[in-house]
Amino acid sequence: MKNRNFFMQEGIREAKEAYERDSVPVGAVIIRSNKIISKAGNEVIKRHDPTAHAEILAIRHAASLIKSEFLDDCEIYVTLEPCAMCAQAISLARIKRLYFGAYDQKYGAIIHGSRIFEHAIHKPEVIGGVFESQCREILQDFFKTKRY
Amino acid sequence: MKNRNFFMQEGIREAKEAYERDSVPVGAVIIRSNKIISKAGNEVIKRHDPTAHAEILAIRHAASLIKSEFLDDCEIYVTLEPCAMCAQAISLARIKRLYFGAYDQKYGAIIHGSRIFEHAIHKPEVIGGVFESQCREILQDFFKTKRY
Repeated sequence: MKNRNFFMQEGIREAKEAYERDSVPVGAVIIRSNKIISKAGNEVIKRHDPTAHAEILAIRHAASLIKSEFLDDCEIYVTLEPCAMCAQAISLARIKRLYFGAYDQKYGAIIHGSRIFEHAIHKPEVIGGVFESQCREILQDFFKTKRY
Repeated sequence: MKNRNFFMQEGIREAKEAYERDSVPVGAVIIRSNKIISKAGNEVIKRHDPTAHAEILAIRHAASLIKSEFLDDCEIYVTLEPCAMCAQAISLARIKRLYFGAYDQKYGAIIHGSRIFEHAIHKPEVIGGVFESQCREILQDFFKTKRY
């Protein structure tokens, strides 16, 4: 039986791949019946697409795979607290549980900012801070090289 | 010189096409230099994609067209008050102005719910209620047939 450590490490691997292609290093993994059905890293720069966050790509792929816009029986692992766009996508897809790694005071919209799930019709269970320091360090490294 | 009436009517045409394919009738149009560069209707059902709202599809297409994730010099017309996902996508794409038609007390996130732009780093100018009753009636018709 695979556990949350394994799944978040897969998300971290996706984040590192995003780093390699010069994109903000965030990864997302979608789980159904204890199996990974979809995973993605941020591809905003590569695709010239402001919506190509890891979560959106992973959700789109999972939904197309199971031929339904509802992912009721799925969980999502993300290395960073989702922004409002991704949080609302998670709610629209009715994903049952969200695990995230690092906290994001600037764009995060789960426990920061617009706190999407306080207003959403579908509210997933949320577990934050999973492998927090590892997820945060990858981002800090990236932004150091960028001098953002 | 085309004006906002013309552009919103194009959005309404997209909404009607979404209606025909049994999707929630919302349309979006993106304008640059007074020309339509991208337009789309809701395709959630058709694509099995919870993120395939009209705004997201129109933004993705416009960004791929101009090969940039930033649509700074663009405006977006939407027939319905955007949800949190779409509002954040509009902010991430740095679209300069948002015109929307009908108000949405349930999912709207501009003047309702999570009020995304109050927390967003990029806040577009917002003009709501453009052809409000026409945009609302299409939606009311649709939901009447669905008995939602």
